[in-house]
Amino acid sequence: MTYQRMIEIRTRGRSTHDITEAVRAVLETSGIETGIAQIFVQHTSCSLMITENADAAVRHDLETLARRWAPDGDAAYRHDYEGDDDMAAHARSVLTGSSVSVPVGNGCLLLGTWQGIFLWEHRAQAHTRCCVVTVIG
Amino acid sequence: MTYQRMIEIRTRGRSTHDITEAVRAVLETSGIETGIAQIFVQHTSCSLMITENADAAVRHDLETLARRWAPDGDAAYRHDYEGDDDMAAHARSVLTGSSVSVPVGNGCLLLGTWQGIFLWEHRAQAHTRCCVVTVIG
Amino acid sequence: MTYQRMIEIRTRGRSTHDITEAVRAVLETSGIETGIAQIFVQHTSCSLMITENADAAVRHDLETLARRWAPDGDAAYRHDYEGDDDMAAHARSVLTGSSVSVPVGNGCLLLGTWQGIFLWEHRAQAHTRCCVVTVIG
Repeated sequence: MTYQRMIEIRTRGRSTHDITEAVRAVLETSGIETGIAQIFVQHTSCSLMITENADAAVRHDLETLARRWAPDGDAAYRHDYEGDDDMAAHARSVLTGSSVSVPVGNGCLLLGTWQGIFLWEHRAQAHTRCCVVTVIG
Repeated sequence: MTYQRMIEIRTRGRSTHDITEAVRAVLETSGIETGIAQIFVQHTSCSLMITENADAAVRHDLETLARRWAPDGDAAYRHDYEGDDDMAAHARSVLTGSSVSVPVGNGCLLLGTWQGIFLWEHRAQAHTRCCVVTVIG
Repeated sequence: MTYQRMIEIRTRGRSTHDITEAVRAVLETSGIETGIAQIFVQHTSCSLMITENADAAVRHDLETLARRWAPDGDAAYRHDYEGDDDMAAHARSVLTGSSVSVPVGNGCLLLGTWQGIFLWEHRAQAHTRCCVVTVIG
């Protein structure tokens, strides 16, 4: 059985957004008991990740590191149509990924206690981001 | 329902190859309407990624960054049997991943407008790379 | 059809653990012939990866690079409750991922000759890590 639904997230520029509850709501509507929930973001300048959900300092520090992994406005970049954060955002997206998949058991997301699902906005400006949630089981 | 097919890509050394149409062709043959298409590359020195499909400068800049993330011929490497690009290729593969999964709806890949699926060759020499496309729905 | 089983791995602090045979055993018990095997780790300070299975020097060099990607005890970190390796472990987890998915054909994992599935412990201390293996086909 397959169930699919879109969710939209309005970001506020560079930031992380906990979408765990939104994914859980789709799963509950699906009625699927055992399988996999996949979440996919339809953009190349933000990403999805699973990380620690308790201390917001973790996401703050991830942002600090991401600025080293893919610096804004690097002199070596050729792609800079949309500003200093343009290429950096694409690179962060490739490093951290456009989708996450979470196992489903007993109708629940089988996340660990400290795991949350986050949308990570890599552009400086606010955007509306579309995610496709697909549950298969 | 599950449908599976192999695709082969002949690379030309370090470069990116847009395989979106090849994946789409497998999906169409499958006849599956709703689900997930997974693409998996059976090698540890190249990777698959989803990134911007319009401006080739994005992939050029990703190559620039990858050379920083995992430099060729780093003095600290112990694994260098096959040359300066050997260990760098394995590291890039781990950072960017051996598979991508894309949701399928109405028989189409639910990619965003600017998203393409790329094989990223990390070795300096040309190789023939095998990918397994599995569609479940 | 969906089959799901937990596997536990006792790590010895920073190190890699080949879990390919454990995943293969779950697949064989499942009896599923064609589909996808997903492995998911329920923690945010270790990760799963597919990499070269022959020369252990590859994983040694990956460890060398990971210390650059996310240094221990970086002065910029705010999250350091559990020591110098705490935030570094979360960052490595985000960079390298909480799950891997491998296609299944003829009842076998369709890995390439040199591909193995590894749990990568990023904390300095030994831990017991829980993985969920889900086979869909």
